[in-house]
Amino acid sequence: MRRCLELAAAAAAADEVPVGALVVQDDIVLAEARNQVEAQRSPLAHAELLALQQAFVRQGVKRLPGAVLYCTLEPCFLCAGAILHSRVHTVVFAARDPKFGAVRSLATLLEDPRLNHRCVVREGEGAAASAALLRAFFRGKRGADPSLPLPPGPDQP
Amino acid sequence: MRRCLELAAAAAAADEVPVGALVVQDDIVLAEARNQVEAQRSPLAHAELLALQQAFVRQGVKRLPGAVLYCTLEPCFLCAGAILHSRVHTVVFAARDPKFGAVRSLATLLEDPRLNHRCVVREGEGAAASAALLRAFFRGKRGADPSLPLPPGPDQP
Repeated sequence: MRRCLELAAAAAAADEVPVGALVVQDDIVLAEARNQVEAQRSPLAHAELLALQQAFVRQGVKRLPGAVLYCTLEPCFLCAGAILHSRVHTVVFAARDPKFGAVRSLATLLEDPRLNHRCVVREGEGAAASAALLRAFFRGKRGADPSLPLPPGPDQP
Repeated sequence: MRRCLELAAAAAAADEVPVGALVVQDDIVLAEARNQVEAQRSPLAHAELLALQQAFVRQGVKRLPGAVLYCTLEPCFLCAGAILHSRVHTVVFAARDPKFGAVRSLATLLEDPRLNHRCVVREGEGAAASAALLRAFFRGKRGADPSLPLPPGPDQP
């Protein structure tokens, strides 16, 4: 998770919403990515999705059944859907995302008994650091554009 | 939708689950794609996601607020999440997907009032043709491997 937070900080330094993700299997990092929505000019260039796509390219496999995905923010529906298709075993996320989170906040998609795959979910590790990065980033943005939404607060880990 | 079905048929001919998608704006096709899960060896290479990614690359914009996404199968959570982030105005899909569909079958994600974007949804056009393609494809597969799941039937449009 420390490396995830470094990736998130690197995203912020590049003027991207600070989110980082890592795919790990058997203690080996298969892929890592940070949010690249601005760089790629695509709202789909989320850290989790990019890390998974990279893992598939590198491994040449269609599933990652023994993998753990670490990320600094609760995955949204796009990323949670990608996680399910990837058959990732465990997802560890730091801060909750009360607006878009599909794992705990708006839904529990990774544990939905109707779907053909379920993940072990762990949350909280690094939550304060991740929330601090997000808050600082959005505060900076709000300085430039006060119409931007407020980020999750410290009471929303 | 006719072009979408052609793309789905092309997918089947390439031994891919037959799904096609098209992104249209002001009567101009911005992007089209077919399922490429086998070709790319990635479970994330869904037709809808590929078409949206292509549209962003081509247009150099981060949102597609006036666009219509046509697809031959009800989008899953991954693709519905991508559609929401893309701010697509309208989604038209042919056949429902009772196992993975996130627009009508398992959820109504594109019309969720908790999210910051909602789409107009239309369904049914081309449903019989799309379901026939899927059935034929999975029947062929089941011939080779009877353990594969059955596709949606004709009573599941």
